[in-house]
Amino acid sequence: MNRQVCLVSRPKGMPSVDNFKVTTREIPKVGKGEVLIKTLFLSVDPYMQGRIGGRASSHPPFALDQPANGDGVGRVVESSHPDFNPGDYVSGFLDWADYSLLPGSALLRFDPKEVSPAQELSVLGAAPLTGYFGLLDIGQPKEGETVVISGAAGAVGMTVGQIAKIKGCRVVGIAGSDLKADYLREVLGFDEAINYKSLHWMAMLEQACSKGVDIYFDNVGGAITDEVMKKINRHARVVLCGQISSYNLEQPDVGPRHFRQLIVKSALAKGFLVRLDYQSRFPEGRQQMHEWLHQGKIKPCETIIFGLENIPKAFLGLFTGENLGKQLVQVE
Amino acid sequence: MNRQVCLVSRPKGMPSVDNFKVTTREIPKVGKGEVLIKTLFLSVDPYMQGRIGGRASSHPPFALDQPANGDGVGRVVESSHPDFNPGDYVSGFLDWADYSLLPGSALLRFDPKEVSPAQELSVLGAAPLTGYFGLLDIGQPKEGETVVISGAAGAVGMTVGQIAKIKGCRVVGIAGSDLKADYLREVLGFDEAINYKSLHWMAMLEQACSKGVDIYFDNVGGAITDEVMKKINRHARVVLCGQISSYNLEQPDVGPRHFRQLIVKSALAKGFLVRLDYQSRFPEGRQQMHEWLHQGKIKPCETIIFGLENIPKAFLGLFTGENLGKQLVQVE
Repeated sequence: MNRQVCLVSRPKGMPSVDNFKVTTREIPKVGKGEVLIKTLFLSVDPYMQGRIGGRASSHPPFALDQPANGDGVGRVVESSHPDFNPGDYVSGFLDWADYSLLPGSALLRFDPKEVSPAQELSVLGAAPLTGYFGLLDIGQPKEGETVVISGAAGAVGMTVGQIAKIKGCRVVGIAGSDLKADYLREVLGFDEAINYKSLHWMAMLEQACSKGVDIYFDNVGGAITDEVMKKINRHARVVLCGQISSYNLEQPDVGPRHFRQLIVKSALAKGFLVRLDYQSRFPEGRQQMHEWLHQGKIKPCETIIFGLENIPKAFLGLFTGENLGKQLVQVE
Repeated sequence: MNRQVCLVSRPKGMPSVDNFKVTTREIPKVGKGEVLIKTLFLSVDPYMQGRIGGRASSHPPFALDQPANGDGVGRVVESSHPDFNPGDYVSGFLDWADYSLLPGSALLRFDPKEVSPAQELSVLGAAPLTGYFGLLDIGQPKEGETVVISGAAGAVGMTVGQIAKIKGCRVVGIAGSDLKADYLREVLGFDEAINYKSLHWMAMLEQACSKGVDIYFDNVGGAITDEVMKKINRHARVVLCGQISSYNLEQPDVGPRHFRQLIVKSALAKGFLVRLDYQSRFPEGRQQMHEWLHQGKIKPCETIIFGLENIPKAFLGLFTGENLGKQLVQVE
């Protein structure tokens, strides 16, 4: 039998576990060109909030009473596609379920001796590639520049910081606990990491950015972004990746206007949706990340919750900062 | 004798004519490499508000009790620079005065049979070149795209709209009176022009932008920008040129945050200061604008106030929308 996690109602603001239900169905039959996959890991990511709330962006909203879906890895159980055989490890857009049935053309095979199934998501998946393309393509980091990252202890932020170090930048991470800040500094080699919940975080940021901010990689928005925007240098690049602080607001998100600061600094702010803007370049990004992983220049980091039924809880934890690095759910 | 208009005190918010005073000095003596110019026209521009208030951007603040300065044209009275002779027409950064003494290297000679002294400022000066580089370099207009311009009846906005028409775009101007809107449509060939002071301007904007907004050239900021931002298309470019609605605010400028919209639309917002970012390319811009002027594709438009002593009033009129096109002061 196949357990599936379905969205059963749409919340107005912050979702809760009650918006989801586990149902059990038959394991689907494999049609021509299709592949049946048994799930190993599923990824939960902040952008899914829009899919739960009913807003389309790069993905359509989750349909009610259907299994939700997202990035995942699994093993092939049965295949009628010539490129895949039972036992193969694959990644793709899997159902939040024990089993997914997908066309072979939507799957990517990987070698678990090269990257572990969890690393396939935490280092080579859409989240780290979001950091890769956002930083390199929009941010255009140059040696000696100061890069500030909000949401720095998440999967995207960690990737950005490590790549910025590879590029010779001074890296300042902003995260939500002392433990996270310590990890960024001590394990990942960030130059500075600030817990924005500490009393004097603004003064710490001021000190960490004594030469101003050349690149701001923003995953958070809100009051943190307001503070960083005051410090941008001429020709700064603000990479707009996420605004997690506002995703669950029921009121309009209001704050100081930043456009005048962009003018005075001749600065750029650019948003992107990785799947719509960079999907065709994923192979290039995967190859480079794979190389850096094997050189030890990118350290994998995952927070793993066990049990398919816990995926709503794992998702909600993204908004309360439960995860360090890529939040995954281990299904088997 | 040489009348000079000096800033004598700095206002907190909106300046008034009382912040200025006319003083009379001797006409300065010409030193080596210098040129004495008798002023014909002076340009007043919104960016000068920062110079009055004491904030540096591309220019230093106006010094107190010294003549203010800005773009202007005049005739050479006396020259000890080999490139200039008495009677030559020149443009440059002139004092708000009857006479200016400048190094010849800071002056540009022009032929009044090719462009009138007023057109030298309204079509070939820093304001029209601001529109030229902002639209073409940041906006990157493509045929058939919809371009929306705030402050469309000012010197920058008019240039932007006319160039966007040359590039085959659909052009929607936003201005502050029915007369201005009529002028943009009937004289300059804008596809649509909207008086934002009319009751149903938002509905008019909605109708004018039925295919969304590909380029938003923003001179104004505030509530107008908030409305346009709702309508941007995927990969839209927001050219941040000015935020005149906020220049005289004494309170922080607060409003809806736009960064999330930039993410969802994979859109870019880029600010610039024309003198810092494009000065080296002015000759290219002047040449193209000159060609379009002579082809009748760019129509000059100036609002001229007579009398050096009226320059503070002319400047203040920019904030109450008195000008149609380039606001100039005719000194002689």
